[in-house]
Amino acid sequence: MKAEAEAPEAGETSSRHAISALEMNRGISILDLILRIIAVVGTFGSAIAMGTTNETISIFPQFSQVTAEYDDLPTFTFFVIANSIVSGYLVLSLPLSIFHVIRRTPAKKTRIILVIFDTVMLALITAGASAAAAIVYLAHEGNASANWLAFCQQFDSFCERTSGSLIGSFGAMVVFILIIITSTVAISRR
Amino acid sequence: MKAEAEAPEAGETSSRHAISALEMNRGISILDLILRIIAVVGTFGSAIAMGTTNETISIFPQFSQVTAEYDDLPTFTFFVIANSIVSGYLVLSLPLSIFHVIRRTPAKKTRIILVIFDTVMLALITAGASAAAAIVYLAHEGNASANWLAFCQQFDSFCERTSGSLIGSFGAMVVFILIIITSTVAISRR
Repeated sequence: MKAEAEAPEAGETSSRHAISALEMNRGISILDLILRIIAVVGTFGSAIAMGTTNETISIFPQFSQVTAEYDDLPTFTFFVIANSIVSGYLVLSLPLSIFHVIRRTPAKKTRIILVIFDTVMLALITAGASAAAAIVYLAHEGNASANWLAFCQQFDSFCERTSGSLIGSFGAMVVFILIIITSTVAISRR
Repeated sequence: MKAEAEAPEAGETSSRHAISALEMNRGISILDLILRIIAVVGTFGSAIAMGTTNETISIFPQFSQVTAEYDDLPTFTFFVIANSIVSGYLVLSLPLSIFHVIRRTPAKKTRIILVIFDTVMLALITAGASAAAAIVYLAHEGNASANWLAFCQQFDSFCERTSGSLIGSFGAMVVFILIIITSTVAISRR
């Protein structure tokens, strides 16, 4: 009698356990969706901010005008392209992320596919952001050994804007690291 | 009688299946170990190649000597530090990777911990390599808009060596992407 009375309880506990595991996986899926939306905003904002940067200044003695544009520096062009590709990928990945929230099965295969692309995109966004950061640093500080002068004294607003556009990109880098980690945790559970 | 005769066969198939899954996981673990060793060689080689780069040239008219060293450019110093950190981490991760080869259980927790660190290290090595690549590109091509002159005509061997040291670092980046993908696949199985 005692064994029979305990049996349903054990069954209930295991089913409760299964539900809480499912709820947790759903929580991870919702977190994944939120992180992807944040990364879209970051990368798209970075691409727009950098891509629309230009500044025209008048050099006093000659009364001539000099314009600085982001595509004067190939690295900034790469930065805009990298951010555009990554934000495009993120938009395409949103339906799959929503599908993971709605669907109640583990959906491991689609998650693995997303992790593969996420890892490549993490490398791409990091490459774009840090290459641009290296150039922004040079623009601010210059380099005495190479005889490269800092042009941030003249092109003040140009420099501020290019520096600012790095924030979204580095933010997206951190978000990608979190996305990969949470996805791996979700894949390990079932 | 027929059902009884089939039962052991089914059991055999399932046990064979389990063995092949275990063999496959072991294969993934061995691949992981090999990839880590390749990445150690790449990052350590890059750090050494960049860290020992210097060139002294004589400028003809003045009979004066000018020395170019890697730490004239802060980005190259960051490159050496990033490569040293990543190769140090990889050496520390080797025992855990060997443990995954020897142990026959899935060992999911230690694999997840490795994926977390691998992802951060992928970002670090990519940042170092691409920032250095941006500077190497400037050294080769210069930039007319910013009035930064290419110094590779003068410092020929310095430029060749810094360019060459990028190879190990970008190679390690690709290897890290493969490590993360194979680890995720290993975590998804049991």
